[in-house]
Amino acid sequence: MTDIDPSTRSRVLAALRDQRIETASWAFGNSGTRFKVFAQAGVPRNPYEKIADAATVHRFTGVAPTVALHIPWDKVEDYADLAAYAKERGVGLGAINANVFQDDDYKLGSVTNPDPQVRAKALAHLFECVDIMDATGSRDLKLWFSDGTNYPGQDSIRARQDRLAEALSAVYRRLGEDQRILLEYKLFEPAFYTMDVPDWGTAFAHCLALGGKAQVVIDTGHHAPGTNIEFIVAVLLRAGKLGGFDFNSRFYADDDLMVGAADPFQLFRIMCEIVSADALRAEAGIAFMLDQCHNIEPKIQAVIRSVMNVQEATAKALLVDASALASAQRDGDVLAANEVLMDAYQTDVRPLLRDLRGEMGLEPDPIAAYKQSGYLETVTSSRVGGNAAGWGA
Amino acid sequence: MTDIDPSTRSRVLAALRDQRIETASWAFGNSGTRFKVFAQAGVPRNPYEKIADAATVHRFTGVAPTVALHIPWDKVEDYADLAAYAKERGVGLGAINANVFQDDDYKLGSVTNPDPQVRAKALAHLFECVDIMDATGSRDLKLWFSDGTNYPGQDSIRARQDRLAEALSAVYRRLGEDQRILLEYKLFEPAFYTMDVPDWGTAFAHCLALGGKAQVVIDTGHHAPGTNIEFIVAVLLRAGKLGGFDFNSRFYADDDLMVGAADPFQLFRIMCEIVSADALRAEAGIAFMLDQCHNIEPKIQAVIRSVMNVQEATAKALLVDASALASAQRDGDVLAANEVLMDAYQTDVRPLLRDLRGEMGLEPDPIAAYKQSGYLETVTSSRVGGNAAGWGA
Amino acid sequence: MTDIDPSTRSRVLAALRDQRIETASWAFGNSGTRFKVFAQAGVPRNPYEKIADAATVHRFTGVAPTVALHIPWDKVEDYADLAAYAKERGVGLGAINANVFQDDDYKLGSVTNPDPQVRAKALAHLFECVDIMDATGSRDLKLWFSDGTNYPGQDSIRARQDRLAEALSAVYRRLGEDQRILLEYKLFEPAFYTMDVPDWGTAFAHCLALGGKAQVVIDTGHHAPGTNIEFIVAVLLRAGKLGGFDFNSRFYADDDLMVGAADPFQLFRIMCEIVSADALRAEAGIAFMLDQCHNIEPKIQAVIRSVMNVQEATAKALLVDASALASAQRDGDVLAANEVLMDAYQTDVRPLLRDLRGEMGLEPDPIAAYKQSGYLETVTSSRVGGNAAGWGA
Amino acid sequence: MTDIDPSTRSRVLAALRDQRIETASWAFGNSGTRFKVFAQAGVPRNPYEKIADAATVHRFTGVAPTVALHIPWDKVEDYADLAAYAKERGVGLGAINANVFQDDDYKLGSVTNPDPQVRAKALAHLFECVDIMDATGSRDLKLWFSDGTNYPGQDSIRARQDRLAEALSAVYRRLGEDQRILLEYKLFEPAFYTMDVPDWGTAFAHCLALGGKAQVVIDTGHHAPGTNIEFIVAVLLRAGKLGGFDFNSRFYADDDLMVGAADPFQLFRIMCEIVSADALRAEAGIAFMLDQCHNIEPKIQAVIRSVMNVQEATAKALLVDASALASAQRDGDVLAANEVLMDAYQTDVRPLLRDLRGEMGLEPDPIAAYKQSGYLETVTSSRVGGNAAGWGA
Repeated sequence: MTDIDPSTRSRVLAALRDQRIETASWAFGNSGTRFKVFAQAGVPRNPYEKIADAATVHRFTGVAPTVALHIPWDKVEDYADLAAYAKERGVGLGAINANVFQDDDYKLGSVTNPDPQVRAKALAHLFECVDIMDATGSRDLKLWFSDGTNYPGQDSIRARQDRLAEALSAVYRRLGEDQRILLEYKLFEPAFYTMDVPDWGTAFAHCLALGGKAQVVIDTGHHAPGTNIEFIVAVLLRAGKLGGFDFNSRFYADDDLMVGAADPFQLFRIMCEIVSADALRAEAGIAFMLDQCHNIEPKIQAVIRSVMNVQEATAKALLVDASALASAQRDGDVLAANEVLMDAYQTDVRPLLRDLRGEMGLEPDPIAAYKQSGYLETVTSSRVGGNAAGWGA
Repeated sequence: MTDIDPSTRSRVLAALRDQRIETASWAFGNSGTRFKVFAQAGVPRNPYEKIADAATVHRFTGVAPTVALHIPWDKVEDYADLAAYAKERGVGLGAINANVFQDDDYKLGSVTNPDPQVRAKALAHLFECVDIMDATGSRDLKLWFSDGTNYPGQDSIRARQDRLAEALSAVYRRLGEDQRILLEYKLFEPAFYTMDVPDWGTAFAHCLALGGKAQVVIDTGHHAPGTNIEFIVAVLLRAGKLGGFDFNSRFYADDDLMVGAADPFQLFRIMCEIVSADALRAEAGIAFMLDQCHNIEPKIQAVIRSVMNVQEATAKALLVDASALASAQRDGDVLAANEVLMDAYQTDVRPLLRDLRGEMGLEPDPIAAYKQSGYLETVTSSRVGGNAAGWGA
Repeated sequence: MTDIDPSTRSRVLAALRDQRIETASWAFGNSGTRFKVFAQAGVPRNPYEKIADAATVHRFTGVAPTVALHIPWDKVEDYADLAAYAKERGVGLGAINANVFQDDDYKLGSVTNPDPQVRAKALAHLFECVDIMDATGSRDLKLWFSDGTNYPGQDSIRARQDRLAEALSAVYRRLGEDQRILLEYKLFEPAFYTMDVPDWGTAFAHCLALGGKAQVVIDTGHHAPGTNIEFIVAVLLRAGKLGGFDFNSRFYADDDLMVGAADPFQLFRIMCEIVSADALRAEAGIAFMLDQCHNIEPKIQAVIRSVMNVQEATAKALLVDASALASAQRDGDVLAANEVLMDAYQTDVRPLLRDLRGEMGLEPDPIAAYKQSGYLETVTSSRVGGNAAGWGA
Repeated sequence: MTDIDPSTRSRVLAALRDQRIETASWAFGNSGTRFKVFAQAGVPRNPYEKIADAATVHRFTGVAPTVALHIPWDKVEDYADLAAYAKERGVGLGAINANVFQDDDYKLGSVTNPDPQVRAKALAHLFECVDIMDATGSRDLKLWFSDGTNYPGQDSIRARQDRLAEALSAVYRRLGEDQRILLEYKLFEPAFYTMDVPDWGTAFAHCLALGGKAQVVIDTGHHAPGTNIEFIVAVLLRAGKLGGFDFNSRFYADDDLMVGAADPFQLFRIMCEIVSADALRAEAGIAFMLDQCHNIEPKIQAVIRSVMNVQEATAKALLVDASALASAQRDGDVLAANEVLMDAYQTDVRPLLRDLRGEMGLEPDPIAAYKQSGYLETVTSSRVGGNAAGWGA
C-alpha cells in the first residue's frame, strides 16, 4: 500500500475533499474537571467569538464548515445576526445542543424528574431549542440528558423511562419537516447509579418508538470499558438509525480527549464501517461532530489537530482494498483479511492529505499555518475583560 | 423491618411458595476453564443421571421443578422416555439450549459463518432443537451463539448481522404456537474482537424484528464492567421483551460463579425490578434459570445454594415497602427512598425461608438435609465407569 | 447466626464501641460534577461551621470523634483556636489533606511538574501542611496528587516519578516523630492518560523507599474495574504498609457515593480483612476515614448514614466465626468456608447496633434523632450570607 | 518524519538488527477457549516438532532466535539432545515455563494450596524446572501461578501470600548464579474471586523480598480494563525490576490475540518506554517473549505476523525524536510533545523493515516467503498420526 495507485488516489481525494466535520462552540471555551478549570488566555467570551474561532479552524483545514451551538451557553438575541456573522467568516451554524442540566431545578433530573413542574420547564427549554433551530436553519437537535439516579431506589427506573418517552414524543411532534432528534446515550456521569439513557440500546428503542426523524448519536467516550464501538456503528447503520457522532477519545471514561489521541486504531475501525456502508457522503445524513474538552492544551490548535486526526483515519479507511477484503472474508482467511485492513492502517496518509490541502488552496500543514497566522496572539490581546466562556456560560 | 407484619408475611410467603427456578443439566457435569477441567467424583454420565441430580435439588428446595437441556449434550433416543423419567422423579423438562459451537465446522461461526454450507448445518441443528421441543413439550428455545470474530477485518460485521437475521427468521417461522425463542447476548468469549450478539440492544433489535415469540434472555455474567443489569431488566420489561434469566455471578467476566456469590446486592436489585413489575408470577412468562459452572465446588450442593440465594434475594425484594418507596421517590427524598430499599436488603430473611420450607413439608436447611441424605455418597459409588458428563459430552 | 451467643455479643459490642471513623470537613460543603454543583441550603461557610456539622455527626453516632481538614480549604488564622472550638463540640482535628491541584500553576502537575518553580511552590505547600499538623497535633498528612498527563508523550513518566520521589523525600524528612505520610493513589481523573500515582503498587514502592513513617491509603473508589480491594488490604497489612482508608462507594469510577451504598458486600469483605488481621484497634494505626461527595443528598444525614454503614459492615465482619472459617479453609471445603462468611453477612446487625447505641447513651436510630433535633433547620436559617463552602473554598 | 535522515536510519537499523524476540513452543500447538479447541492440521506432536516450527519463524524473520519451553508439555528424556536439535535448526532454547495448574491436585492451588502435601508437590515441580534449566542452559524461570480462589472466604488471602513467599524463597535459593525468576501476575482466570498474584504490585513486592535475581514479567493481557501498561513498564524499569514481557493483545481480558492486533498504539507506547530507557539492548536483560493463542488462525503464520508487529512498533519507537520530545516536555508544550510521538507512530516503517531484511539476507516479506516455502504443506502431510500438541500435552 506504500504506493497508492492513481485511481484509488483520485477516489480517496474526492471523498476527503467532500468530508464535513462539525466543530463545537463549547470546545473553544474553558473546561475542566470537577477538581479545577484551568483558564486559558484568549478564550472567547460570547458566541460570536466562539464562531470566530471555529471559522479559524475551518480556514486552516477546509473541512469544518459548521459549528454546533449549545443552548443556553450560546443564547443570543438575534440568531439571524449570528448566522450572518458566521457566514461572513465562512462557516455555518450546525446542530443545536439542548442543555437541561445546569439549573438548580434539575438536581434530580430534567425530563425524567419526579416533579412534573420541573419536567414542564425542561420540555419548554427543548421547545425553545426547536425555535432556535427554526431561526438558525439547523437540522439537528442533539439531546443529551444528564438525567439519572445516584442511589438504588432513588427513583423508579421504569417511571423515568415513561417520562422520558413522553418528553421525547412531545419534542418529536414539534419538529419541522427537515429537522430531527439526535438522541445521545452515556454510561455514567453525572449520574452514578444509572443514567436514564445509558446505552445505545435504550437510545435505539426510544428512537424506534418515535419514528424516522429520531436517530441515535454515538459519543465515542460514553461506553463501558471493552465496548466495541464500530459494532454499534455497523448495527445502527444497518437499522438506518445512526444519526451521527460526537467524536473524542478516552483511556478511561468520558475523558473527552482529542479524537484519535487515545486509540487511533479504533477511530480508523469506526471510519471503516462508515466507508464500507458508503455513509461518508453528506446524503447519508450522518453528522460527524467533535465534542471534546481541551482542559490543558491550547483549544483552537487542539481542534485543528482533532480535525486532522479524523481526516487521517478517514483517509486510511478509504484506502482499504474492499474487494481484497471481501474476498479474504469469503474465503475465511482470517490473517489475510486482517492484513488487508492493517495494510491501510499502517499507510502514512499524511503526504496524501498535504496534497489534498494543496489542491484545496490550503497550507499543507494546518498547525504550522495556524501558528504562523498569529491568530492566538491577536485574540489573546483583544479578548480582555468580560467573562471567558466556559461550561457554565 | 426486623419484625415483619403478618399480612406482609403471608403475601411474601405466598409469592415465594409459587416461585419457580429452573436448573441446568450441564451444571451437574464437569466444567472448568481453558486451563483445566477438574473432574469430580459422582458426576452424571448421561442425561438421565443429570435429571436425577436436578430432581435432588428440587427435592430439598421445592422450587426447582424443571431442568433445562443442552443439545447435543443431552441428546437421547427417546425424549418421551426422558420426560417420563423426569416426571417420576418429580421434575419436568425445561428450556432446550441449542449448541452450535462445538463442531470443527463452527470455527468461524455457525449461523453467521461466511460459508453457506456451515450456516445450513447450524440451521438444521436449530430445527432439530425445535423438533426436540415438540417431543419434550418445552416452551423455550434458548439461543446463545458463540459466533463472532477475533480480528478486525476478519469478517463483515454487517453481513454477519444479515446472516444472523436470516437464520433467526427461519427458526422463528418453525416455532409452534406456544413456543418461543429466547435470544441471549454476551460481550465476549469465545470471540475476542466482537461477538455477533454482544449486548442487549442487538438481541432486542433482532427480537423486535422477529415478533412476539422472540424475547431477550439476560445472562447476568455477560456484560461489560459497570453495566447496570437491573436497568436492562426494567427496560426490557417495559418493552415486553424480557424472556428470562441465566443466573450466575461474576467478579470479572463470565465467571459463572454461583448466583448471588459475587454481588448479592445486585441480585436483590434485579429481583426488585421483577417484583415491582409483578413479573415473578408464572403468567408473566419470565424464565428464571440457573447457568453456572461449579469448577471447584461440589456441584449439587452448589446448585442448592444457588437456588437458596435466589430465594433470599427474592424474599428481600418482596419485603420492599412499595408504597413507602413510591412516596419517597415522589418527594425526591433520595436518602429516604434508598433507605426503604436497604431496609429490605438488610433484613435477614433466612428465618422466613425456613418457615416457608416447613410449610411446604421440606427440611428447613436444604444443604444440611442434602448432606444427611447420603445422595452424593450413593451416586459416587454407583456412577463408576463410563464417561463423566462435561461440556463436550 | 440469627441468634448471637452472649460471649460473641460482648466481644463484638466492645469492638464496635471502640471503633473510630473520621469524617471529612469537605463532605459538608457543596460538591458536584464538572457538569454542575447543586448548592444546598445550610451548608457551612467556614471551617468552624464544618466542624460544627462534623460534631453533629459524632453526637448522634458516637464513633466519629475526629474530622479531617483540607488545606487551603480549611485554612484559618489560628489552628489552636479551631482545635479548641472542635474540642468544645466534642470532636478533634484529624488528618491534614494537602491540596496542590487548584492553583493555575498546577495545570501540568504540582510536585511532578516539569517546571522546577512550580514544584518548589507545591513543596512549600506540603511543608505548610506539616506546619499545620504541628499546630493541630495531627498525626497524618494525607497526600493525594492529581498530577499526571492527558496525552501520550506529554511528559516523561519516569522523570515524573523521579520528581515525585524527590518531593516525597523532602516532606518525609520534615515529618515529626509521631507524624506520617499517607500516600493515596488513583487510577484516573483529573489526569486521563496516566496519573503519577495510579495504583497501590506505585504508592507502595514510594512508601517503601521513604521508610516506616510513610504508608499507603486506600480510597475505595480509586481502582480499575474488577480490582479486588480486600486483596490489596490484606497484602498491605501483611507488609505493614496500610495506613488507612478513604471510604466511599462507586458503581463506575470515582463516584464518591456514600460508603456501602454501591456494594455493601465489598465493604463487608474489606472489614473482614481488617478484623482478621486485628487491625480495627486504634493501636494498629489504621485511619478509617470517609471521603465522599454528597452531590444530591442532604450532607449531614448522608455522613451519618455512611458512618452507620461502616458500623454495620464492621459488626458483620466481627460476627464471622473465625475458627469455623479457618477449619473449613484448612479442609479445602469451598462451600462451607464461603457459607461461614455469608452467614455473618446475612445477619441483620441493626438490632445489635441499636443496643450498642443504647449502652453508649445515644438514641438507637441516629437518622431519626438527627432529624428530630432540628439541627438542619437551625443552620439553614442561621447560615445566611457569605459563601457556602465547596471544593474551591 | 516521512523522510528518515541517514544517521537516524542507520541507528534504527542497527537496533532492529540486534532485536531479539522469543517465541513460545505452545503457540504452535492447538489452543482454544473453554468452549472448544479447534484442531488445526500440521500441528506439532512433540517438542522437537514445535522447535522446528519456531525455527521456521526465525528463518523468515531473523529476530526470533530462541524458543521458550513449557514443562511438562515440553518434557523430553534428553534436554541436551533437544538443545542440539534446536541449534541445528538455528535456534536456541529460552525460558523455562513452569506449569503447576494441570494436575487434579491443584484444584485449590499449587504453592498456595492449604494442603502442605500439594504445596510440596508443586515445589518439587519448580525444582525440576530449575534442573531442566541447568540442562538447557536457560537463564529464566518464568513462574505464572494460576493459584487463587473463586469465592470470598474460600481461603485466607494472607495465608496464601505467606505460602507463596515460602515457595518462591525456596526456589530462589535453588537458582544458579546466572539464573533468575520471572514472576508473572494476572488479574483473573482461572481464579475468579482473587488470584494470588493479581497485579504488578504483588509481583513486585515478592520480587523485592527475594532479591536481585527475581524480576517481574508483564503479560500485556493480564490487566484490569484501563490499566496503563507503559506506566508499569516505566516504573519497573526505574526500579530495576522489569524482567520481561509476555506479548499478546486483547480487547477484553486475557484474549491472547496476536501482539499488536488489538491496540497497535499501545504496543508502540510500551516500546517507547523500552527505547527511552535504553532497555532494548540484550545487556538490559529484558526478555521479549510472545505468549499467544492462535485459536482460529494458522499458527506459524500468526507467530511470524506477531514478530513483525513487534518489529514495527519497535521501529516506530526508535524513530521518536528524543531531543525534540524532551524539549517540548520541558516547555510544557502538550501538543508539541504529543505530536513528536505521533509523528513517529504515523510513519510507515514497513519499507525500512523490508530494507533491514534485505541487509540480513532475508526475503523482504516474511509472510509471503513463508507461504511460498511450502513448509505448512510439508508438515501437514508429514505430521500424521500421534497426538497433536495442545495445552494439555
